Amino acid sequence: NRTNVPERVAGPLLEDLLSDLTQINNSMERAKRLFEWLIRPIPAQTFFRDTWEKKPIFVQRNKPDYYKGLFSTAEFDRILREEYVQYGVNLDVTSYTNGKRETHNPPGRARPFTVWDFYESGCSLRMLNPQAFSSTVWNVLSILQERFGSMAGANVYLTPAQTQGFAPHYDDIEAFIVQLEGKKHWRVYNPRLKEVKKEALTNFKQADIGKPILDVVLEAGDLLYFPRGFIHQGNCLPDAHSLHITISSYQKNSWGDLLHKLVPAALEIAIEEDVDFRRGLPLDYLTYMGVQNSDKDDPRRGKFFSQIETLMKKLSNYAPVDAAVDQKARDFLHDCLPPVLTADELASSVQGAPARWEDGRVKGVGAQITTQTRVRILRAGCARLCSDGEAVHLYYTTNNSRVYHKEEPQSFEVKTEHTDAVEYLIHSYPDFVTVESLPCDSVQDRISLTELLFENGIIHTEAPL
Amino acid sequence: NRTNVPERVAGPLLEDLLSDLTQINNSMERAKRLFEWLIRPIPAQTFFRDTWEKKPIFVQRNKPDYYKGLFSTAEFDRILREEYVQYGVNLDVTSYTNGKRETHNPPGRARPFTVWDFYESGCSLRMLNPQAFSSTVWNVLSILQERFGSMAGANVYLTPAQTQGFAPHYDDIEAFIVQLEGKKHWRVYNPRLKEVKKEALTNFKQADIGKPILDVVLEAGDLLYFPRGFIHQGNCLPDAHSLHITISSYQKNSWGDLLHKLVPAALEIAIEEDVDFRRGLPLDYLTYMGVQNSDKDDPRRGKFFSQIETLMKKLSNYAPVDAAVDQKARDFLHDCLPPVLTADELASSVQGAPARWEDGRVKGVGAQITTQTRVRILRAGCARLCSDGEAVHLYYTTNNSRVYHKEEPQSFEVKTEHTDAVEYLIHSYPDFVTVESLPCDSVQDRISLTELLFENGIIHTEAPL
Amino acid sequence: NRTNVPERVAGPLLEDLLSDLTQINNSMERAKRLFEWLIRPIPAQTFFRDTWEKKPIFVQRNKPDYYKGLFSTAEFDRILREEYVQYGVNLDVTSYTNGKRETHNPPGRARPFTVWDFYESGCSLRMLNPQAFSSTVWNVLSILQERFGSMAGANVYLTPAQTQGFAPHYDDIEAFIVQLEGKKHWRVYNPRLKEVKKEALTNFKQADIGKPILDVVLEAGDLLYFPRGFIHQGNCLPDAHSLHITISSYQKNSWGDLLHKLVPAALEIAIEEDVDFRRGLPLDYLTYMGVQNSDKDDPRRGKFFSQIETLMKKLSNYAPVDAAVDQKARDFLHDCLPPVLTADELASSVQGAPARWEDGRVKGVGAQITTQTRVRILRAGCARLCSDGEAVHLYYTTNNSRVYHKEEPQSFEVKTEHTDAVEYLIHSYPDFVTVESLPCDSVQDRISLTELLFENGIIHTEAPL
Amino acid sequence: NRTNVPERVAGPLLEDLLSDLTQINNSMERAKRLFEWLIRPIPAQTFFRDTWEKKPIFVQRNKPDYYKGLFSTAEFDRILREEYVQYGVNLDVTSYTNGKRETHNPPGRARPFTVWDFYESGCSLRMLNPQAFSSTVWNVLSILQERFGSMAGANVYLTPAQTQGFAPHYDDIEAFIVQLEGKKHWRVYNPRLKEVKKEALTNFKQADIGKPILDVVLEAGDLLYFPRGFIHQGNCLPDAHSLHITISSYQKNSWGDLLHKLVPAALEIAIEEDVDFRRGLPLDYLTYMGVQNSDKDDPRRGKFFSQIETLMKKLSNYAPVDAAVDQKARDFLHDCLPPVLTADELASSVQGAPARWEDGRVKGVGAQITTQTRVRILRAGCARLCSDGEAVHLYYTTNNSRVYHKEEPQSFEVKTEHTDAVEYLIHSYPDFVTVESLPCDSVQDRISLTELLFENGIIHTEAPL
Repeated sequence: NRTNVPERVAGPLLEDLLSDLTQINNSMERAKRLFEWLIRPIPAQTFFRDTWEKKPIFVQRNKPDYYKGLFSTAEFDRILREEYVQYGVNLDVTSYTNGKRETHNPPGRARPFTVWDFYESGCSLRMLNPQAFSSTVWNVLSILQERFGSMAGANVYLTPAQTQGFAPHYDDIEAFIVQLEGKKHWRVYNPRLKEVKKEALTNFKQADIGKPILDVVLEAGDLLYFPRGFIHQGNCLPDAHSLHITISSYQKNSWGDLLHKLVPAALEIAIEEDVDFRRGLPLDYLTYMGVQNSDKDDPRRGKFFSQIETLMKKLSNYAPVDAAVDQKARDFLHDCLPPVLTADELASSVQGAPARWEDGRVKGVGAQITTQTRVRILRAGCARLCSDGEAVHLYYTTNNSRVYHKEEPQSFEVKTEHTDAVEYLIHSYPDFVTVESLPCDSVQDRISLTELLFENGIIHTEAPL
Repeated sequence: NRTNVPERVAGPLLEDLLSDLTQINNSMERAKRLFEWLIRPIPAQTFFRDTWEKKPIFVQRNKPDYYKGLFSTAEFDRILREEYVQYGVNLDVTSYTNGKRETHNPPGRARPFTVWDFYESGCSLRMLNPQAFSSTVWNVLSILQERFGSMAGANVYLTPAQTQGFAPHYDDIEAFIVQLEGKKHWRVYNPRLKEVKKEALTNFKQADIGKPILDVVLEAGDLLYFPRGFIHQGNCLPDAHSLHITISSYQKNSWGDLLHKLVPAALEIAIEEDVDFRRGLPLDYLTYMGVQNSDKDDPRRGKFFSQIETLMKKLSNYAPVDAAVDQKARDFLHDCLPPVLTADELASSVQGAPARWEDGRVKGVGAQITTQTRVRILRAGCARLCSDGEAVHLYYTTNNSRVYHKEEPQSFEVKTEHTDAVEYLIHSYPDFVTVESLPCDSVQDRISLTELLFENGIIHTEAPL
Repeated sequence: NRTNVPERVAGPLLEDLLSDLTQINNSMERAKRLFEWLIRPIPAQTFFRDTWEKKPIFVQRNKPDYYKGLFSTAEFDRILREEYVQYGVNLDVTSYTNGKRETHNPPGRARPFTVWDFYESGCSLRMLNPQAFSSTVWNVLSILQERFGSMAGANVYLTPAQTQGFAPHYDDIEAFIVQLEGKKHWRVYNPRLKEVKKEALTNFKQADIGKPILDVVLEAGDLLYFPRGFIHQGNCLPDAHSLHITISSYQKNSWGDLLHKLVPAALEIAIEEDVDFRRGLPLDYLTYMGVQNSDKDDPRRGKFFSQIETLMKKLSNYAPVDAAVDQKARDFLHDCLPPVLTADELASSVQGAPARWEDGRVKGVGAQITTQTRVRILRAGCARLCSDGEAVHLYYTTNNSRVYHKEEPQSFEVKTEHTDAVEYLIHSYPDFVTVESLPCDSVQDRISLTELLFENGIIHTEAPL
Repeated sequence: NRTNVPERVAGPLLEDLLSDLTQINNSMERAKRLFEWLIRPIPAQTFFRDTWEKKPIFVQRNKPDYYKGLFSTAEFDRILREEYVQYGVNLDVTSYTNGKRETHNPPGRARPFTVWDFYESGCSLRMLNPQAFSSTVWNVLSILQERFGSMAGANVYLTPAQTQGFAPHYDDIEAFIVQLEGKKHWRVYNPRLKEVKKEALTNFKQADIGKPILDVVLEAGDLLYFPRGFIHQGNCLPDAHSLHITISSYQKNSWGDLLHKLVPAALEIAIEEDVDFRRGLPLDYLTYMGVQNSDKDDPRRGKFFSQIETLMKKLSNYAPVDAAVDQKARDFLHDCLPPVLTADELASSVQGAPARWEDGRVKGVGAQITTQTRVRILRAGCARLCSDGEAVHLYYTTNNSRVYHKEEPQSFEVKTEHTDAVEYLIHSYPDFVTVESLPCDSVQDRISLTELLFENGIIHTEAPL
């Protein structure tokens, strides 16, 4: 599980990489490149085939600056000083001493004076949503979410030397532990399947978790990945504090989570369409079924079970798979961070369009979308056409907030005569297409649809208007 | 669909029949006998095999007194005079004139003065829960519910000559139209499957329903049965008013209704027990699944559908059938009417036990349950052991109210050491067993359990205490 | 406080009295007569002048049958046997032993078997709303509520010999303890004003309540009255059980309770009509007012207090007294028991009007209200015209239920052109007036208003229709 | 009502003034000075005596830069470009054409592209809470709120030439119209008292409001004040757009608003302490009081009214004035903007205290409050001791958000042994006092109380720690 990385394979500084990415035409490609940087030198294909969701892996780089620029204690201090940080909402103060896990959050606003005092007394600090305060974290996560097709989140952990902030526990996400400063000793243990069912996220006692399957010290520039369910604990050594950021994804993103949307809908449809589901139960089924009859050796029980099995097997015939995927997609688009625009993207989209106040009057309002204007959606995944029963809505991420779910899901209904054009735009990405080429009935339709998409920040133009 | 009944086959008067039934030892047997009387001369076995849930049937008896004693206009008048009847709650005033269906309920209490005035102006009267006011209807329904294993309900309809009270429509219950007085012209039409999905219970226009498959005139003593979904309408002829009672059952009692309880539970268990349900979705599934990609010819779509099918088929392996049946049973026991006790049953159960106030003091309190006392449950279906996750509860009908759901579901937790004894009691029915024979750990346990069941009216003793 | 009653003053049996009352033309007069019987031989005028709300009084009659027919242990037993009585809702099982007050209510339905068992073990029984089960109690209370102009309630208490059911405590109602059977030792203590504020209804310790101001033994036929706030306790002697009914009234019926309705309304009006209430507070009032400044010797404080006093004194100029009384009246009419009708009243009102089903058809529906019909309201206080802001509504008691607040407040809006006629009818009571004499604009109005009132049971006719 | 201001009286630029204010030791004094600048050259004393709450006044300055720096169209554009502005929440798009008032807000985020397009089409723009986006507006309002002892709010209005954004209407606040750019024609009309009661804030028709009492054109640098209730309308002339900010205060800050808190509390106390309030109402009051009896000439009515008057007059004896003021104060402190700290204040308070992360470790945590530390509250009105029944709480503004009510009311309970010290601190303002001088029982108490206040940003030290 350990990968030693020769220094030469180490990649570019994050700042340079992010700058390079702006030159890439396709957001999916950007996401791939950024993810490669995250797990380098492991090839992504290998990683997803052998490691992802399967086992922990440790990447030792001996290159302390590898993740430089992503986050730092200086940034931590700046945030405390300049932003309105609240205990319990944005910051947790924790400790794990003599087997006891405690949270020390006072009520109200977190001020540097008190936060650093907690730290000096040996408490760990966890910043819960650094993307709301740090533009770089926001940018990185907003790119990575396209790689995962699932929300990418982050927590930052700052731990004093010789202490531990949390009890051994497991999480329900895929975790990338990115060591930023100092070092930290990590131990990862096999999942305990039996307990999984009952004690999710519980803190474990040391005696109950056996021997670690991975026991390593992360230094700045190193990476540790482990799948959900794997028990883990990290503690600081006597000689160094630790700052790391955990990048996570794939919360509630399993087949089972999709089935939660799909199965009830399938049952509704089956009942409507298949008379076998509408037939009455046997008159006397209560006399041989149910827990009080479960020990009975009654042939009718077998018949009953068999009928249930037949019906349940038929259920999949009625499963509205694409509609259920759309339900998951809607949730995902609501979870998403809004895209961070490059200067070019800004200049060619609604927020940076020339309309402005200057010299005592409004200027640049005349800029018009015409049939010759060339447009595309801002990101491969920034908008999605979903059917809600009868109507079709376009859901989009571009008006989301950096603060999780601060805004309601953003969407509007797409008229029947516009759905083909929206689909065409989505599938044309990353190519720009002329407004004229949109499969609409009239020029009027093409223009008004394009304006609507432009005004909501969903598309941008090839050249500034 | 028409059955002519020679007069000789006609059965006993209801009063005599109900009196005879009190001599029958087993409530299931009583229910069978009463149901036979309802549909005589059709044999129950034939009925359930050929007709039930399949097609309408008309039983013409030429015996006006066949259903005498079940309900009457005199009883209708008495109820208006002596009980607190509320428009909209207990009584609806309706009309269907020139294709228009109207409800004329004023607010508040229904007084005979105004009710009969509505009737004289040509309105139909529907009494919504006659079982709350009529002891005979209560008794009949409380017996029949054991035949159906599903709540038996009733409405009474009184219609003036030459009028119709309702538009053509269909219902979601199995309906037995019992003609009590006067006569009524009925037309039954085939179900319209397509509409079923969208317009349940809607009123139809005459032009939309085609030709009737059954067109008959019910006279007092006749019976008409039709399954749910069959469109029907009844109107009075110029020469006679009509009084009938509709006895109904099997509302929400289909395999689909059971699957509503079962399928979500099966999915929870599958996710807990089967790692295949916990695996992450494909990284890129949003790019080829969902409505906006449904026209795509992408091989990954086939793989995705196939994986969904595999998982849905596996679902039945995790289906907690008996637990889901218990959920349905709990609902049924809450819906049930409480049993009507015979004089003997009353004398041998808690409500009629000798404890009483007499001559200035309490008497008969000394009566004791001993190990030699012989007991049984009051009705085959009056109590049921159901598991709620960890604990086991006994649900019972004996404290229910005659008014639908006026009381909360009645139940208490059964200690682990008592479940065998309760099961033994339930399965021993209709036999009386001694308290001594209960499979408990101690005499103390046997006595206290028996007392608990006795005090809640669930069991009675062979001889009065 | 003790009144010895020579036997000769004892009045008629309740049954005879209630029969006599039906001959009295005016419900207020009936109420007076029934109340005189309750407190005889104390003259009502004397009672209300010297005793009511002021002090306890004991009426010893030596006539065990004086209250006979009001309620009995036989009736108690009948109710348990025939009605659906619920622990906690209709019946409490209590004890007070060694200074400890306990409630022993099991969940669910109260059966005679278990109730009498509790009693035999020394528990007291309190029936919470005997008027819902006993027609006589209903009748008596429905008459008395007109005497009090406030809801009359009742509890029945059955206590075994040598026990006590409740700790010393006080109540917030005027209490008439009517001894029905057996005897009971009562001690009444002065109110403890200080505690009143904080510990309303609390159970006291024996040591805290001092010496009784009244210490008597009630025997069947005796009466004890005490005002709210007076601490009291009753216990059975070794030789006899006790059955008494407590008749109560005047809960939340003080000037303060009226002011709760009046004062906020007065303030709203004052702010609307008087500019002094709309003026801004002094700019700097927060710097010298408030708890943190309460010790300041600042002359502005005096001025501020004085302005407050001026405004509060002006408040009474804007008090909508009649409207506030109507709010209290509306609550009272909702609290009221419905009237118990005499046979004559029944025959001449909507519930007993001739419309009926007989011999296979409706009869008596033709009966018509004409301008010559003579009508009056059923009881002096059975209906009341109240203004709700813009509109005027008629509130009435005749559709109330015997179960407290089981029905919503009953009322309907009275059109402007009908208010005079309704007021005329109310003020004409107890006289019957012709429909013709109603001050309405047209015959049509007179008839339709009268029909509306008749159909809601608010008025009856001099002769049956 | 018009005041011509010779150019020489014009004051300093806002930037300089705000800088000067940081040198003033007392926030109340700062507030006075800033308010003087706002209304110059009218002396504040004259203004509050003759004009405030009484009549409109117009200050014409002929000095277009007088209010420069407060807000500008450039700032408006910047906000649209850089902040997340939402239609309906932060920005309204309105028009008033041909007597019709319309709001044109689309859903979602307001982008400069669409906002300026609305403006160019003739719509007015209203920014609802510029203090959340503009630090200068925040600073100015946070200072002024201490002058008013009531929340100071602001809206910004940008109106195109030759248009009007709103119908004639009145508001419920004292309004200071500060003309920032361009010019606007204003007409102010007398309040219409009758309508005030029913149609608060309604839009009026031109024909209904009569002749203006003030008809002026505001140019940049001018001020218009009018009290609540005065109807007003502003429209742009053909030759110039208009940008103004309306600074408002005294919403719900009248004697009547205080009485809303005070009167119900006074009644509760009166009922507890004065037996006259607990006495029962007259037995028969319902027969002569209430709307249906209001025309009766009954002497008991006079007595009843007189008793009500007596009790209402007595109410003021029980009025808990200081406690009610505290309730108003609590609301005010919740409404308040947090203070904007000067550099010195920042350095000497918790947010700027030396504790920081530097060179890989925490520094400056050692800084300690000692008995010799000299402290004071940050602003005269930034904290207030209020009693909530039994306990005493300190409410404070320093953790409030710039967004109205985004945070819950901030407070903590003050132990009994600390209340004197807190009061002492509040009353010592603007003087610094040593921790030693706090009237506490022990050094430990003094230190821990000071730390608590310091950590919540309520106090700062004379010299940085």
